[in-house]
Amino acid sequence: MADAKYDVLGIGNAIFDVLVKTDEKFLADHGMTKGSMALIDEARAAAIYRDMGPATTMSGGSAANTIVGIASFGARAAFVGKVKQDEVGKLYIHDIRAAGAAFDTKPASDGPATGCSYILVTGDGERTMNTYLGAAQNLLPGDIEPGEIAAAKIVYLEGYLWDPKDAKDAFVKASTIAHGAGRQVALTLSDAFCVDRYRAEFIELMRKGTVDLVFANEGELHSLYETSDFDSALQALRRDVKLGVVTRSEKGCIVASKDGIVAVPAAPVKELVDSTGAGDLFAAGFLFGLVRNAGYENAGRLGALAAAEVIQHIGARPQVSLKQLANKAGLPV
Amino acid sequence: MADAKYDVLGIGNAIFDVLVKTDEKFLADHGMTKGSMALIDEARAAAIYRDMGPATTMSGGSAANTIVGIASFGARAAFVGKVKQDEVGKLYIHDIRAAGAAFDTKPASDGPATGCSYILVTGDGERTMNTYLGAAQNLLPGDIEPGEIAAAKIVYLEGYLWDPKDAKDAFVKASTIAHGAGRQVALTLSDAFCVDRYRAEFIELMRKGTVDLVFANEGELHSLYETSDFDSALQALRRDVKLGVVTRSEKGCIVASKDGIVAVPAAPVKELVDSTGAGDLFAAGFLFGLVRNAGYENAGRLGALAAAEVIQHIGARPQVSLKQLANKAGLPV
Repeated sequence: MADAKYDVLGIGNAIFDVLVKTDEKFLADHGMTKGSMALIDEARAAAIYRDMGPATTMSGGSAANTIVGIASFGARAAFVGKVKQDEVGKLYIHDIRAAGAAFDTKPASDGPATGCSYILVTGDGERTMNTYLGAAQNLLPGDIEPGEIAAAKIVYLEGYLWDPKDAKDAFVKASTIAHGAGRQVALTLSDAFCVDRYRAEFIELMRKGTVDLVFANEGELHSLYETSDFDSALQALRRDVKLGVVTRSEKGCIVASKDGIVAVPAAPVKELVDSTGAGDLFAAGFLFGLVRNAGYENAGRLGALAAAEVIQHIGARPQVSLKQLANKAGLPV
Repeated sequence: MADAKYDVLGIGNAIFDVLVKTDEKFLADHGMTKGSMALIDEARAAAIYRDMGPATTMSGGSAANTIVGIASFGARAAFVGKVKQDEVGKLYIHDIRAAGAAFDTKPASDGPATGCSYILVTGDGERTMNTYLGAAQNLLPGDIEPGEIAAAKIVYLEGYLWDPKDAKDAFVKASTIAHGAGRQVALTLSDAFCVDRYRAEFIELMRKGTVDLVFANEGELHSLYETSDFDSALQALRRDVKLGVVTRSEKGCIVASKDGIVAVPAAPVKELVDSTGAGDLFAAGFLFGLVRNAGYENAGRLGALAAAEVIQHIGARPQVSLKQLANKAGLPV
């Protein structure tokens, strides 16, 4: 196996976040399902934005958040995703590169604007996302550079990629290249409703070995196996994938491998401000631990640390160096 | 005097903020004067942005931040300022209107892009601003609607308006209309270097009665009277303007009127995260107190409360309802 150029390369929907604090009534009045990610069209995006309060805007996107987190830990990371060559797209490109990650996907010169997610954060810190995919819909298999994919120790993919019409082909192409180069492929299940839309396909990806590692939160795991029983869902996950990591909010995470189950506690949180990016940053820390061969226990702790940082402020990107944070916490970096 | 349609109408540079946490070395390497606002051209804006880390973006602008704060307290507020009809300009318009303030200045359809400030926030919470005025340079006297100005109890102007070439004419026009309608005119001195650029003109505005109320921080006051002696500067301010309000960070503020001096303490702060907007939000609270006839002491406390809220998170706009915050603190709203 050739030397790796990247520790982790992530492929995902490039989405700019428009975040606002709101109340439960706003969600109810607009027919939103709290805590979920709903796909919206341009007209609904305009209607939601019109009614929203003053916003904080920031680059987002699930896999992109993870990649930025991995770079913040000090590892070599790259992102593949599609923006348009518009003002928001330029902000987006800047933010990933400025975080120290590579991002060379050619922006679209025409077609829909850079994708946006309108994120409502309620007083309890929960986030409800409404995503207009925009230019992210035009991520095509041709955007996958075989040499780049083969040069990453781990290729990380988001389940949300099943939503744009051609991105799943890009996903499968990337997985095939990665495995051909002896690399690992990781998938996050993204969202319980996303799992509901693509359950059979996700299970097939796991059983056929298209993915080696799966990240899921409890809701996604229950949705995947259509059960409310955590233990039976966890057993099913262990059967279906080499390595499964289930996040459980303040209860920490469970790492399920063929060798057994490891439970890792959550990191302390003074105040939950905005849960946006919690799962993404957990994945960042866990993947960072894996590429550093830190063991599942430490990988889980690194994930918990990064998730705790990101939920204590608005927005899904870390505001401090995760490398320094891990150093202070005595975790391996 | 006719009934007022607005409690406060603010006129200022419409500036979108691009905020990033950084270290002292970045400031030194880029020749920035910590804590100041420097005007930059497009080429320098591009160079600074290229070197900056991942950013949080948010609508800003000194008077605009104040107006949003006043609306957040529950008063009737309006803003006058110039953006371009571009993507960032649309975000800007949304954010002011979504905060409950009126904003009807016609955006520019051509010319430079919506203005941006590249704001570097160091570990001690201090902010250093680099502002590309962009479309804000094209605020003209024709953008001042006499009926709107005359309908506001207080017209609030920022010293930064002296930087764009035609805005000071807009400023003077607004003051003349306001006084003709029996209204009050307030000015913030904005920045010590801004005062240095326009010292004689600012003093003339005060002595001629073009402005009735002046906000300054200690640095601006010392710059105005070219002295390092606080007490003599304060006495000079009392001679030159009907009402002077001097903010002193954690030492609170001093309200200086013909009747005497009132000192008001700062509000408690758990953690200083980003001082951007501290003076703007102080002015919001103080002006809100004035229009509610709450007295100088309470006005100062309302200002301190709003400033304390805004410096405990990234960005210069409040993240919670200032009305609710004031209610909780037992202050008059």
